[in-house]
Amino acid sequence: MSELSSVALSLREGLRRLAKAVVVITCRHDGQRYAMAATAVSELSMEPPSLLICINRSASLHAPLSQGADFCVNILHSMHSDVSAACSGKARGEARFETGSWIDTEEGCPRLADAQASFLCRNVDAMDYGTHRIVIGQVEQVFLTGTVSPLIYADGRYFELGNPISVT
Amino acid sequence: MSELSSVALSLREGLRRLAKAVVVITCRHDGQRYAMAATAVSELSMEPPSLLICINRSASLHAPLSQGADFCVNILHSMHSDVSAACSGKARGEARFETGSWIDTEEGCPRLADAQASFLCRNVDAMDYGTHRIVIGQVEQVFLTGTVSPLIYADGRYFELGNPISVT
Repeated sequence: MSELSSVALSLREGLRRLAKAVVVITCRHDGQRYAMAATAVSELSMEPPSLLICINRSASLHAPLSQGADFCVNILHSMHSDVSAACSGKARGEARFETGSWIDTEEGCPRLADAQASFLCRNVDAMDYGTHRIVIGQVEQVFLTGTVSPLIYADGRYFELGNPISVT
Repeated sequence: MSELSSVALSLREGLRRLAKAVVVITCRHDGQRYAMAATAVSELSMEPPSLLICINRSASLHAPLSQGADFCVNILHSMHSDVSAACSGKARGEARFETGSWIDTEEGCPRLADAQASFLCRNVDAMDYGTHRIVIGQVEQVFLTGTVSPLIYADGRYFELGNPISVT
């Protein structure tokens, strides 16, 4: 990997302040299951209902998603830091599914049974930029469980939601 | 506005769990200043250093950004709920800058002086999808202030970061 520019280093430092819910993106392709913890996810449009994810070319999910695999975006619960760790560490492929309670959708896509929310997405469009691919998913099905308590990543660590703030 | 489909309604419900730092996106175009609170922001690539924002066609920022205006993404501090409210409420144009401490960059783009981080972006690429436009900004300058304490939006409300969670 080449050295990052000074602007890239500053961007990385600044992004530690862009707190985000942690998700695990999953798919099944050619019979194999894939999972990756991520925060580069954004809501996109309500018509059609859609969201986007940004995937590094070096990620194992890049090949199946570039070949059009549908995918699931699972928002982790604050108790799921172990799932996030399993899906972002050294474990690869099936080993990532040893942590957490995974079930298959009708289409065979893995989803986390007790995720805060799971969005089952059809892979409908994409755009390459720099080291990454922006993949657009049209949301076809949504699963919700439990009350709102997402796992948050900021400043290089995991957090739970804190106190509510009222608008002054 | 047409009625949302049942999947869109479920997506909206699920997205309440995708906790996110609140940012204010700003630009100057034809001498006018624009500001909009948003959460549809994502890191994209480190080479080149870049991020993306998703802008509704109905937003006032849509026209200047579609015409290539450069922009600034300001991550709000937990004390900035008033700035978020001013930049997402009925106030339009200059009135949005009456709340918060705004200064101009050398290029004339407004930035929030005490934002957690401000990313000054060159408007380099875009893609339209559904009701929105994905705009890619190449980050040219980064400003950081204070310690890490972002304003978070989840479940329709503002929060501060809570307790850190250690990986078990």
